[in-house]
Parts: sequence; structure tokens; C-alpha cells
Amino acid sequence: MTDSFFHPVSGMDLPRFAGIPSFMRLPVLGLDDARRKDVDIGLIGVPWDSGTTNRPGPRHGPRQLRDASTMIRAENGATGVRPFELVNCADLGDVGPNPADIQDSMARITAFYSDVRAQGITPLTAGGDHLTSLPVLRALAADAPLGMVHFDSHTDLFHSYFGGTMYTHGTPFRRAVEEGLLDPKRVVQIGIRGTQYDSEDQDFAKSVGIRVIKIEEYFARGLDDVMAEAREIVGTAPTYLSYDIDFVDPTFAPGTGTPEVGGPNSFEALQVVRALEGVNFVGADLVEVSPPFDSSGGTAFLGVSIMFEMLCIMANAISAKT
Amino acid sequence: MTDSFFHPVSGMDLPRFAGIPSFMRLPVLGLDDARRKDVDIGLIGVPWDSGTTNRPGPRHGPRQLRDASTMIRAENGATGVRPFELVNCADLGDVGPNPADIQDSMARITAFYSDVRAQGITPLTAGGDHLTSLPVLRALAADAPLGMVHFDSHTDLFHSYFGGTMYTHGTPFRRAVEEGLLDPKRVVQIGIRGTQYDSEDQDFAKSVGIRVIKIEEYFARGLDDVMAEAREIVGTAPTYLSYDIDFVDPTFAPGTGTPEVGGPNSFEALQVVRALEGVNFVGADLVEVSPPFDSSGGTAFLGVSIMFEMLCIMANAISAKT
Amino acid sequence: MTDSFFHPVSGMDLPRFAGIPSFMRLPVLGLDDARRKDVDIGLIGVPWDSGTTNRPGPRHGPRQLRDASTMIRAENGATGVRPFELVNCADLGDVGPNPADIQDSMARITAFYSDVRAQGITPLTAGGDHLTSLPVLRALAADAPLGMVHFDSHTDLFHSYFGGTMYTHGTPFRRAVEEGLLDPKRVVQIGIRGTQYDSEDQDFAKSVGIRVIKIEEYFARGLDDVMAEAREIVGTAPTYLSYDIDFVDPTFAPGTGTPEVGGPNSFEALQVVRALEGVNFVGADLVEVSPPFDSSGGTAFLGVSIMFEMLCIMANAISAKT
Amino acid sequence: MTDSFFHPVSGMDLPRFAGIPSFMRLPVLGLDDARRKDVDIGLIGVPWDSGTTNRPGPRHGPRQLRDASTMIRAENGATGVRPFELVNCADLGDVGPNPADIQDSMARITAFYSDVRAQGITPLTAGGDHLTSLPVLRALAADAPLGMVHFDSHTDLFHSYFGGTMYTHGTPFRRAVEEGLLDPKRVVQIGIRGTQYDSEDQDFAKSVGIRVIKIEEYFARGLDDVMAEAREIVGTAPTYLSYDIDFVDPTFAPGTGTPEVGGPNSFEALQVVRALEGVNFVGADLVEVSPPFDSSGGTAFLGVSIMFEMLCIMANAISAKT
Amino acid sequence: MTDSFFHPVSGMDLPRFAGIPSFMRLPVLGLDDARRKDVDIGLIGVPWDSGTTNRPGPRHGPRQLRDASTMIRAENGATGVRPFELVNCADLGDVGPNPADIQDSMARITAFYSDVRAQGITPLTAGGDHLTSLPVLRALAADAPLGMVHFDSHTDLFHSYFGGTMYTHGTPFRRAVEEGLLDPKRVVQIGIRGTQYDSEDQDFAKSVGIRVIKIEEYFARGLDDVMAEAREIVGTAPTYLSYDIDFVDPTFAPGTGTPEVGGPNSFEALQVVRALEGVNFVGADLVEVSPPFDSSGGTAFLGVSIMFEMLCIMANAISAKT
Amino acid sequence: MTDSFFHPVSGMDLPRFAGIPSFMRLPVLGLDDARRKDVDIGLIGVPWDSGTTNRPGPRHGPRQLRDASTMIRAENGATGVRPFELVNCADLGDVGPNPADIQDSMARITAFYSDVRAQGITPLTAGGDHLTSLPVLRALAADAPLGMVHFDSHTDLFHSYFGGTMYTHGTPFRRAVEEGLLDPKRVVQIGIRGTQYDSEDQDFAKSVGIRVIKIEEYFARGLDDVMAEAREIVGTAPTYLSYDIDFVDPTFAPGTGTPEVGGPNSFEALQVVRALEGVNFVGADLVEVSPPFDSSGGTAFLGVSIMFEMLCIMANAISAKT
Repeated sequence: MTDSFFHPVSGMDLPRFAGIPSFMRLPVLGLDDARRKDVDIGLIGVPWDSGTTNRPGPRHGPRQLRDASTMIRAENGATGVRPFELVNCADLGDVGPNPADIQDSMARITAFYSDVRAQGITPLTAGGDHLTSLPVLRALAADAPLGMVHFDSHTDLFHSYFGGTMYTHGTPFRRAVEEGLLDPKRVVQIGIRGTQYDSEDQDFAKSVGIRVIKIEEYFARGLDDVMAEAREIVGTAPTYLSYDIDFVDPTFAPGTGTPEVGGPNSFEALQVVRALEGVNFVGADLVEVSPPFDSSGGTAFLGVSIMFEMLCIMANAISAKT
Repeated sequence: MTDSFFHPVSGMDLPRFAGIPSFMRLPVLGLDDARRKDVDIGLIGVPWDSGTTNRPGPRHGPRQLRDASTMIRAENGATGVRPFELVNCADLGDVGPNPADIQDSMARITAFYSDVRAQGITPLTAGGDHLTSLPVLRALAADAPLGMVHFDSHTDLFHSYFGGTMYTHGTPFRRAVEEGLLDPKRVVQIGIRGTQYDSEDQDFAKSVGIRVIKIEEYFARGLDDVMAEAREIVGTAPTYLSYDIDFVDPTFAPGTGTPEVGGPNSFEALQVVRALEGVNFVGADLVEVSPPFDSSGGTAFLGVSIMFEMLCIMANAISAKT
Repeated sequence: MTDSFFHPVSGMDLPRFAGIPSFMRLPVLGLDDARRKDVDIGLIGVPWDSGTTNRPGPRHGPRQLRDASTMIRAENGATGVRPFELVNCADLGDVGPNPADIQDSMARITAFYSDVRAQGITPLTAGGDHLTSLPVLRALAADAPLGMVHFDSHTDLFHSYFGGTMYTHGTPFRRAVEEGLLDPKRVVQIGIRGTQYDSEDQDFAKSVGIRVIKIEEYFARGLDDVMAEAREIVGTAPTYLSYDIDFVDPTFAPGTGTPEVGGPNSFEALQVVRALEGVNFVGADLVEVSPPFDSSGGTAFLGVSIMFEMLCIMANAISAKT
Repeated sequence: MTDSFFHPVSGMDLPRFAGIPSFMRLPVLGLDDARRKDVDIGLIGVPWDSGTTNRPGPRHGPRQLRDASTMIRAENGATGVRPFELVNCADLGDVGPNPADIQDSMARITAFYSDVRAQGITPLTAGGDHLTSLPVLRALAADAPLGMVHFDSHTDLFHSYFGGTMYTHGTPFRRAVEEGLLDPKRVVQIGIRGTQYDSEDQDFAKSVGIRVIKIEEYFARGLDDVMAEAREIVGTAPTYLSYDIDFVDPTFAPGTGTPEVGGPNSFEALQVVRALEGVNFVGADLVEVSPPFDSSGGTAFLGVSIMFEMLCIMANAISAKT
Repeated sequence: MTDSFFHPVSGMDLPRFAGIPSFMRLPVLGLDDARRKDVDIGLIGVPWDSGTTNRPGPRHGPRQLRDASTMIRAENGATGVRPFELVNCADLGDVGPNPADIQDSMARITAFYSDVRAQGITPLTAGGDHLTSLPVLRALAADAPLGMVHFDSHTDLFHSYFGGTMYTHGTPFRRAVEEGLLDPKRVVQIGIRGTQYDSEDQDFAKSVGIRVIKIEEYFARGLDDVMAEAREIVGTAPTYLSYDIDFVDPTFAPGTGTPEVGGPNSFEALQVVRALEGVNFVGADLVEVSPPFDSSGGTAFLGVSIMFEMLCIMANAISAKT
Repeated sequence: MTDSFFHPVSGMDLPRFAGIPSFMRLPVLGLDDARRKDVDIGLIGVPWDSGTTNRPGPRHGPRQLRDASTMIRAENGATGVRPFELVNCADLGDVGPNPADIQDSMARITAFYSDVRAQGITPLTAGGDHLTSLPVLRALAADAPLGMVHFDSHTDLFHSYFGGTMYTHGTPFRRAVEEGLLDPKRVVQIGIRGTQYDSEDQDFAKSVGIRVIKIEEYFARGLDDVMAEAREIVGTAPTYLSYDIDFVDPTFAPGTGTPEVGGPNSFEALQVVRALEGVNFVGADLVEVSPPFDSSGGTAFLGVSIMFEMLCIMANAISAKT
């Protein structure tokens, strides 16, 4: 049993609409807080969307995700896991970006996550647009390339936009492969769909060995079969989990900037994470939640429900090691 | 053929956006109306949400459900049933609650339904939050405990909240079992999911013999199999039907206070009711529709579509008896 | 390869939120534009809803569909088709209706489409309410009756409304059969559901040989089987494709005036069109998108995604002929 | 003191969100109700917008105005008038329009109001678009032309639209003058503003003697001075009051189809009616409330607040006569 | 200059959309935090609306007010006051209410504020509905009755609702006078308007000497004159400031449960507070902000702008004493 | 009389909801269009918000402003000016920004406007955030510094943000003064208000001679007096007009990223522009309209109403010269 300092406030004690909204009602530990040394999993916000080429908004994601997360309770109803009793979890606050300078922002993010990693904390990130994953990977893959399970409707493997712009939310994993942060043979992308400019991204994927599973294949084979292949691809070595909310059908997750119709529903949105039980994750993110396009707040609530599933499998894995 | 006084106004005669919105465009019969004696099924609103522990709003439910119900026509497209020609239906108005006094409100509701029952009318209720079911059951189960088919994402079987508060929308069926209003062996709860504080509610269910079917089991076995079991559990004795709109996935029914992602879609939302054809229902409710969280009105429209399915099976059953 | 004049502006060059929104960022060709003679498929808006008996709004459809269509890219991710490289496509603008005169509006629409047909252009229409299809068919079926694949939750085969009103969005295909514009033996209607006034429309369908596939049959048999039957019904002769957005479940397409719960999801919304590959379509429409009820814009985006699927199969067919 | 049958339900007894929403919680009297003979002022809905040339929606006005009107209490806080104790008021229901036939709808409206007039009831109308006023005037001015106080941002005096269409919401008062329903010398229009096509309407006004007070003059002279002139223009002879909600600034009344910025605020919206105390009104309307553009419901609430002010001055006048 | 620990985070350092939203980005001090002893002004949330007789929602107020308050900067642009440099301010968190028990909730609130008072902290409260003021006054006026400046469109002086219910948001100040918490001769209510059930509340006001300034008088005399009278009424003795957001016109503050049209605009909403410079306030509240009815968030932003004005005059006063 | 090619489409001919939305329904002339040489005033969109430090969105401004502008008719109702008959106006399309590169975007904007200026066209710009004005001024003030009338609630004169970032929407006019694009002695800023970090911006204004008129002064002196001073400050030399929509109170203009409560209403929003009749404007912009925060579209409609007033005074001035 973990230290009660790290337990969320219960809605049985304080109603869930009350109190300052930290992630899952966990304690908030600032950069210099001494109790950070006891944290196993740290929930971190990256309120940043400067890489967005289309409709901005994910900079508001962390705050809305925190708000919605006060609806999360202590136990996973489907699996029975009680993560906050398995490992010490905390809200580590937000990385402060520079909204008008992409390079400066990436440097700040990498520095923050390098600290987190040095403290032995496994990060669970709430973005932010998908470019967020790149500076995070620079910290987490500093020593060796990682595998990755990637849920998305886009590959985010393009070379550049607008005549040579290299850092956008459509390019992070191209850069990550080029920089040696990802081992492309251990990367699987699931849910890809929608109209495309061309297939330059998928040609690149093929050339380096990234496995792309389009939505038609996903539906035809079924979730269980696809996820079994995903587990096999990443194997037992250290792996990153990146989940773009636009993997989910935009009816279930309208609050995002580049939706593509015809995706999985909310039950599958959770099930795909549960199917990754046992994978050796060194970090995870949930990105592209865009509150200005989420008038009902349903996207944020689905987003934190997915984050809770991530947290459960990560807590189980960490707990199993100790 | 029923008395044309009890037939809804047709949209072919008066456009559906016109006219004062009664339930399904039926005549409205006040407490003292002599024609109440001819009514078989009475639609009743309970605009009340004082039992809500989280986000209020269901007090506005009956009005919005009435408004949406003007879209309902005379015939069930799937089953061909024309309920208003089988039995006399009427809108019996709203029970007037006391928004600042829970016990007073419950007394008012029980008194209203005792009258309705004394008049030989089968009530079909539009809530209100789920605490509504308790004072209704006190009237309907005054003589003997009832069975119940209960669609929901929560069991509503908790003992108490906030340090001993016994009457909230999380406790009605715990009270109903304690008060002998429900026969727990003839109660089935379908669709349970989401995060939980603990399993105190489910421990209670197990201890008294209530059958809980979680959403994972529901999806794994399929609707037909689950509903066959439900029919078997309640058998042929008098039974109550309680339908919390949060049984349905929140994308299909966002207008509710305590949503849980990963539920059934709107087609199944109707099909589960159709699968209860022939059950001996003495009353039914549709609760927890919360207009402040239903910006498009889609939840209310789904709610009345479910109520129409309830009405069809109840009309069939009553009509078969006579 | 087609003339680059007819290629959409790429989002890689000009961000998709920039620029004046024509359909799919295609060039706009006015009535007198000489380049119309080179157009193979013309996208046309009919901003008109005077036939609406319930909630108006589709007059605003074309503008919102154009706006949403700027999210469409060059290639179909599922099928690999690049329609703008197969045939010359253009935005032919809107037909100007007379909002206060139904007959005048129908005459204007028929005149516009007669011109389009005379120019050898295959029209792809964005409505407008469903009465739009009637004046369009008057132009396209001027020589011989057409077959029709019709996706909808209503048959639109009623005789009249409000005591004898013959032209509403509930009557277009009754008129079209009466006027000899459709060959009823080659008409199939898919997705019919919801409550109904009576079965006068379906009795008519039966009497003239129109095949009606209700949603329960659709779900029971599955998409592939149903669509195979649909292809067989229309055969190889000239056929019209009419797609009412309310075919789709209202959760996926809330922006419409007469929704019916319990319909297909967005993936199937696209798949049913893909399943019509090879049919000899001489025109198609997507109708009943109603922006005032589409607060998130998701209905319009789904609508143009469906239009893009239509465009792909039409482009393939035209391209195959030449 | 009036008959308590005609008193509204008090929110002290039944909460204001409860109960079926009739106008101001008054009793509803159908066409054949014998108690109509005791009614002094009848509130009537005309859910119709077929005359709308731009954005439709006012057909939904009466229902939303009824809903909002349940917030109205018994006494005017500013003037102390308690209208329901001065005269018998009732909700006379809606006129059923034919949404697809303008002439048929106008005939239905005139017939309904002719009956009302024959019963000695003074009508207070909730529209509907502004064309509604024409068929109402045909009933009320059957014997002699009326004066009119008209609040609006448009004159609605145009000859025709779209090449000769004579009946739209931009032409009712041109027709009314031509048909001898209004005495132009006793007509004043207040609040006119916004961009215009041309001055054909104002040229007509000048030619027949209608007084047009533009918003710039209104603000420059002040409300008291302007309203004194208005009272003088209409004098003591029978007069009609027509209030287009777009008289008010669209920030205060966004729910309307043809807003013009730069109008009066909500305090003045009420004050201008209070300033008409004592005028000999034989009928009044509040038109162009369009719920699809009134997401917060604020326009409807302002609309019924204006209707209550109208009711107070009309009740005072009727009461003074008896 | 105050301790920098108590300074808000600057938006020049961390963007205003980033970080966990405490009131005005101040440090959060829990019940047991030792630094509470250094606090001069404590901002407190009371997420509670069980006293609401009409449309609920203010329980969500404190969270949304905190979110909006991250837009507040260090200096008052109009007066030049920099409150955080004058006195130590902190966010003291929320009082945890019991949503299903009014008496229990009131006891919890009074206990919380008694502690705050004992610690020498001046409380600035974000409600909650207006019943909140009663348990707060029970703590602050424990020794002697207070004066009060009260902005509102309702007097909240009613005796009871629904047949004898004594504790609702329409009765707090009746109770407060009865309990000796307020000195009625030193109470002024400003902005009263709208329809009313009767004048029982105002008769009571008159009988005990409370000064009621209706909106018509307010507009006729002007803000400066009215506020001079208000300052004179409360004098120099300890006074409470209670500000119901529905004082402001509902167009400027739609997010509230019982709006009344025809109120002051947002500039005046601030000016009335500035006009109270120098009054001896021992506490203040801003109540009835209801996020479910505040779709744009503008009401919350106006609410915190008003709170900042309150903070400035309170900081000046406290600073002047020391 | 101008060439009819440059006249807007009339709503009397084509309903205003129909047709592709160009600015004020004017013809669209691409970069290479030969008819550009005949244009006097060019309306240009700059869909760009990379300088936004808080809530993004203005990149969507031009499209929504074009949509709303289809409500604008031919004649100014207040002044009688018919601008499209005085000078040739056209929609010159959008400048294509690079959303992920601020310097590249500024270079593109300056190049576009340099061309426009070389063609002798006076530009009227729809932003975009306020950084837009800087690259526009670089083109327009290439030869000599300009005067400026600046409506805003912020001075936008800050030195830098986030530790040295020089180009944000809070810094454009600091840069413009530094670069010699503005003559500070001929610059007046009107409407400044809200909380502030510090007075570094206003200290700079004072040091270089920029006149800052805060909102309190504006209201105290009145519009006429303030605007007379403004005209005097800029005199007869070439002047730029920059209008941030947040000058207006956020209730009237909620769709913006950094609102400040307590500003002018919509009538004044137009009047301040009319008061600048006769000033020698060489260009003008309307910036910071942010559709994601403008759910009703009212901000965009107010924005284009302001743009039309700008157009009228510019057309008058140009017409007077020729």
C-alpha cells in the first residue's frame, strides 16, 4: 500500500466539482518539491500548440483535462486495478512553453523531462499538440532508441510543411527516427485514415520498417488480433506510448484540430490500451485534445479516461518490478 | 381502437414544432380531471434533482423531454406497434417537488404515484435524477416487492455519501431493498462500468442476490444473450423498469451528470427495451437526462425514443390482458 | 493527368484555414465561364429548404459544406484514388433559389441543371433539403427514367402534407415516380427507421416495386450483403445517388432537421458509398445538412467526407469510360 | 379582482422549471373552449417563418417564448401593475401554419384572429417572422385602418423581393398600407438602422406619410422625447403595436435572423413599451425571435419580458374602460 | 512590499493558459498550512447551490472563476492599485459542502469561516448561490451585527418558499436580520428589478429599515449619486459586501440562474465597487455565477474582474490600517 | 458611377445565405488578375495568429468575417454613403502565412502588401492577431512614418515577452516605432483598460509622445470630444487605422483572445469610425476576431460592420481626391 499522501481526494469526502483541479485529484509537486523523489508516475501537462498547422487549441488541453479528471475515481471498473495503491502518483504541474518560439519551447520541454527522468519518475503527459512528443522523446531516449505504440489517424511522418518547415505536428516522428530516438522496426502506428496529400509519409514508413495499420485493416481483423501484433512488434524492450485523440472517431472526440471521420468508438478507445498490459512503457502521452472545439467537454473526459487506462497498465508494470 | 380523445395530434395536421409540448402530443389531464379514470398508461414528469451529488440539471429533464417528444409519431417503425390505438395514454403533468427539501419532495412524489396507482394507471416516468425511483417504488411496491430491470452505468446501491447522507442518486436501490420494495433475487443491473471508489455496492449486490452485468460482459456475450438472462431473472411477476440515460455511451447521450465512457450506442439503447417484450411491467422510468449538458438536444430526443419503446411494450402487455 | 487548373490548392502550400472556401478548394466557374466546357464533374450548391416541414436550416448547408471541405486532401486514404488527377472537377457555384416561392425555386434549379447536363458535366450536389432532388431529377431524367440508390431514414414517398400540399421534403420521390423520372423497379431505399405516421409511403413503395431496406434488416444482414443487393437492383443503367445525411445516426450527424436515432456510424457512412464502386451514376446529392443544428461543425465535415467518396467512385467511372 | 381560474401558477407553489410551459403559466384554452368568452387578453403563438428571406427559425419562436415565460411572475416590479388581477388572460394556443404554402398559412392566421376578435379578445401575439403581422392586421383592421407603433431595425416596407415576390418578411407593411389596413399618417417606425439595398422603402414611407425615426435620431433625442412624438402620432384612435426583436441590439437579442448592430439595450427595450401607457391598442405582436440563433435562451427571455410590458399596458387600458 | 511567496505567477513568465488554476494564480494554502498566519486576504470558494429554487449550477462557480481568474494581472488599470504588493493574498481552497444536506453544509461553511476569522484573514468569497452568505455572516457577525452593501436584482428577503421552506437563496438576508447578523438600518440593496410574486420582501425591508434602490431609481439618479448614499448608509462601522452577479444585465452575465433583464452594463459593474473605496469591509462575496448557463465563459471573467475590484479596495483599506 | 463588375451581388437577386462568401460579396481577384489595376480599395485577409501569447484563434478570422460580410448591403443607413458606387472595391484574397514560422510569415505579408501598394490599392485588412499590423506597416510606411488611430484595450507597446521574445501581438507598435514606421507624435490609442502586468508600455508611450486615452477618460469626456482630439493628433498627413476588436466590450465582441470587461457598446463601436471622416488613411485593419470564442457569430458580424464603416470613410476620401 502506497503512502496516503499520494492518494487522490475521494468524491465521497469532497464532491467532485469542488476543489482545485489537479490531475485525478492528486497532490501537486512543484519543481523543487522534496517529495518528488518518492514519485513513481508523474502526470505532466504541456500546454503548447505551436506545431499546429491547422486549427490551434491544444495549448488549453492540460487545464481542461485536469478539470475533467476530477471525475476519475480510485478503481478501474473493468480490470479492478487500483493504481494509486500500487505506486506513488503525483501531478508535476505544467511545462511552461514559449508560445511564440518553437525551438525555445522544445528546449524547455526536454529540460523538464530530463529532470523527471533523472528523478526516476515515469512521465504520463497530457498535451499539447503532437509535436510535444519529440522534445519528450529527446529526454526519454537520450541513451537508446525506443519502440513505440502510436494510436492516431495520421502518421505524423511527413518531411516538412510550407516549403521546408521541419517542426510541426505533422513531422515529429520523422524527426525522431532521424535523430535516433525511435527504433523504426519497433514502431507500430494504428488507426491511420482520412484523405491525404500524398503517400510520402507512408513511403518513408515502409523504407525504415515502421508498421502502419490503417483503419480498414483494423476493423477487418478486429482489435484483439491487431493488438497482439502490436505487442509483438514492440516486444519487451523500453517502449513509448503515444496516443493522439484523433485516433478516436470525431463524434466521440470532437475536440481536436484535425479530425478524420470513420474511427473507433469510445469503448475501443479504452480497450486498445488495456490490450497493452505488460508492455515495458517508459513514458506515455495523450495529445491533441483541443478545448475550443470540445463544447461539451466530452473529449476531455474521454481523454482522461484513456489516461487512467494508461496509468493502470503502467502502475501494474512498475509495481510488478518492485 | 381507443378513444380518439387520447390520440396524439398528428404532424400531418399541425407541424411538429407547433403547439404546446405535452408528452408525445397527448392530452394533458390534471389531478382532478374526470377523464383520468379512462387512462391506461400515464406519462408523468418528476422535475427534481436534489439527490444529485455531482452535476445538477435533471430537474429540467421533463420539460425538455416533452419538447423533444413532439417528434414522436404514431407507429413504431421497427415493430409496427401503434400504442395509442391499443391503450389510452395521457400526459398527467408534473409532480411538484420542493427543491430545497428532499424528504418533503419524496413524500409528494409517493403521494402522487399512490393516486395514480389507485386510479389503475400504469406510470411511465420522465425524471429527474435517479433518487426519483425510490419514492415511486414506495407507491408501486406498497403491497409486495417488485422485480427490476435496471439499465445504468452505476449500480446506485451505495450505502451513503459524505459521511452518512442516506438519500442521494447513488443510493436509491440500496434503500429500496432495505425497505422491501425490491426483491433482490429478481433484480438485474446491466451496463455497469467506469471508475469506482470501491466495490462496497457490488459486495452488497452479491450479498443479497442482485445480478450485476458489467459492460465488458455485455459486449462479450452480446445483447440477445444478456437480455434473455434478464427476462429469466425477472420472470412473470410484477416488475419495474428503470433506465438511467447514462447506460448509453455519453457521446450518444451527453446530457447527463455522471457520464461514463464506453457504453452502448443508440441502436442498442432501443433494442434492449424491445428485448423486454412480454415482461410484466407495473411501471417504468427514464431518468438523469440533464438539459444543461445537452446543448444539441440529442439526449432528450434519444430519451423520448427510449420512452416510446417502453410505451410500446407496456401497451402491448396491457392490451393483451384485456 | 488532368489540367492543373482543376487541381485543388494544397494545404501544404496554403494552410487549410486560409483562402476563400470553394468546394474542396477547386476553382469556381460561373455560369458563363468558358472553362466549364472542360469540366467532368461539377460540384453545385443548392441553398434551399422551402420544402422543410419541420426544422429549417439546410439553406445554409452549401456554405458550411464548402467551409468544411477545405479539410479534404487529394487522395482517398482507403482506396488510393486521387480523383482530381482522373477527371476535371470544379465548383460551379450555387443555384439561386427564391426562398418565398417553391415553384419558382424548382424552375430555377431545373434550368441550372439542364444547362449543366447540356455541358456534359456530371453534377454532385450539396443541398438543401430533400425536395432539391426533384427539380434536379427533372433535368437529369429528361430523356428516360433513372434508377436510384437512396440512403435515408425516411422514404420521402408520401403523397402530401397538411391537407394536400404536394411539394415538401417528404414527397420528392413520390412525385419523381409519378412524373416518370425514376424507374421504381430500379430504386432501393436503405436505412429507413424511426416512428411513422402510417405506412402509406411504404404501401406505395410496395405497389410500384421500390425496394425498402429498413435499418433492422440492414444491421441484421450486414453492410456487404445489403449493398450487393443494392448494386443488383440498380444494375448497369443510368442511376442517381441520393444521400440524406439523416441516414447516419444523429449522434454522428446532429446537424439535420428530422433525425431518427439508431442509425449507422460514420465508418459505415463512408463504406456504403465505397460499396457502390462501378455503378453508372449520372448524378448524386448529399442533402439535409442543417448548420443551425450542427454546433460543432461535425455534420458538415462528415457530409463532405461522404461527398468525397461519391466523387471518387464517380471519377473512377468517368475515367474508365475515357 | 379577476377569476382565479385565469391566474398563473405561482413559482412559490410549483417551481418555475416544472409544469407544462404555457404562456406565463396561464390556462390553455382551445378553439372550442367555452371559457374563451371570459377572456380579455389572449396570448397566441404563430409558429411560422415562410416569409423569411434570410436565416429561418422564428417558427420555433412560440415554443421557446412559452418556455422562457415561465420565469415571469405576477407583478411588474417597475410599475407595480398586476395584470392578471386586472383582466382575464389566457393562452389560446398556436395557429397551425402550413410551412410549405404562404397563402394557405395567411388564410389560416386571418381566420384564427377573426374568431378571436369576434370573441372580444385582444390578441397579444408571439411570432413567427414579421410577415405574421399582415394576416393578423387583415383580421383586426377589417373595419377600419389602424395606427401603428413599430419597433424595428428595418421598415419592412419594401415592394417585393427576388424579382416580384410580394409576400416576405420585408414587405408586410407595404401590403398593409396598400390594403388599407394601416393609416400611414398614424404609423411611426422607430429604431431603423443598418446597411440597406436602397431607399425605396423610405421613399415609400415619405410618400404616404409614415414617420421613420432612425436609430441615430433616437439616441440623439433620447427615449422620452421620441416616445412622446410616437404617442402623438398614433393619438387616441385604435392602434396596433408591432415589435420586431431586432429593434434591440443583437448582443442583447442574438436570436434573430437579420440582426443589425448598434441598437438599444435591454433596459430601453422595456422602457419604450412602458412609454406607451394609455395608447389605445387593439392588438400587439412580438416577432422574429429565432431560437436556432439564441443558444443561451436570452433572446426569448427578453422577448417575454417585453411581452409582459405590453400585457401590462394593455391590461391597464382594458381595465380602465370597464 | 509583500512577501514574494504571495505574489501571483506572471503571464510574462508562464502563459496564462498554463498552470493549475488557483484564484488569480496565488499560492494555495490548505487548512493546516502554517503560512496561513501571514495571510491578509483569503480567497475562498464555496461550491454549493442547494438553496437554489430555480436553475441550479453555482456549485460549479468557484472552479470556473478560478480558471477565468488566471487572466487577471498585477495592477488595476483604472486605479493603479497593485493589491498583491499591499497585502498578502492567498487561495484558501474550497469549503466542502454536502450537496444533499443544507443544514450540514451551512454548519461546514460557518466552521470554515470561523477559523479564517480566527486567523485574522479577511475573506473574499466566490459562491455558490446566495444562501452562501448566511453561514458566512454567522461566522463574521458572531460578535456584532454588520452593515451591508448588497448588489442584486432581488432582495433575497423573502420569508419562505414552497409552503414553509426557510433556507433558500431567496431568504438569506431575512434570516440574517432575524438572527441579528445584519443591522438593517445599515443595509442598502441596489439594482432590484424584474417581475415579482408580491411585495412581501419589500414590506419587510421597509418595516426594519433596509434601504432598497430599484434599478429605475439607479438609472434616473446615476451611479455617483446612488453610491454616495450607499456609503453614507453603511458609514464607518464593519460592513459586508455581497454581490449577486445577476445585479448585472443578463446579456453581460448570462451565466446565472435567475436573470432579470434591464440591468447595468459591465463598466458600471466595476464602477460600483470602485465607488466603495474606503468602506470598512470585513468580508465580501461574489455569488450566483452558474457555469452551465455561461457557455462563453464571459460571466466568470466578469465575475473575477469584479472580485479583483473588491480585492483592490479591501487591500487598500487593510494596508491603510497598518 | 463605378464599373458594375466591382459591385457586390445584391441580396434582392441572390439570397444572402447563398453563394461563395467573398468580402461583402465583391469579386475575388487573385494575385495575377489584370483587373487589379482598376481597384481602389482592396479587402485582404491575413489568417494568422502566431503572435498570440494567450488564446489562439484569429487565424480563422478572415473566413468567418467573409461569411458574416454577406449580410452587408450597398448603402450606409446612417450616413447614406454607397461606397461601391464611389470607388472600385475587390476582395484580394488571403495572404498565405506559415503557421509554424513567424519571420517567414511576416516576410510574406510585407511582400503581399508591397505589391498591393505598388498597384495603387488602399488595403483594408481583416486579421489575424495584432502582430499582423507590423508587417503591413513595413509595406505601407516604407517611405515615411505614418500617424495612427488605434482602438484597443491594450497598448501593444511592450518590449518583449517570455524572456526576450520580440514579436508577439503585445509588441507590434513598439517595433513599429523603433523601425520608424510610425511617428509617435501622431499616434493616439483609445480605450486602454483592464489589469496590467506593469506600466512599462505606458512609460514608453509617454517617453516617445504617444497619446494614450484610457477608457475612464473616454467615458468621462464622451465620444465626440475624444474623437475630436484624435483627429487633431493625426492631422492631415498619411495615417493608419488599426482597430482591435477587443476595444469593444467583450459582451458585444466575445470572440477574441484577450478580452477586457468594461468597454464601449456596439453603437459606439461604429460611431468612433464615423467620427474619423476626412482623415487621410492609407490603410486600415480590423484584427483579433477569434471565431473559436465567437459561438454565435456576433463578433464577426460586428467586425464586418466596423469594416464597412472604415470602407465608407476611405471611399469618401479617395472619391473626394479624384
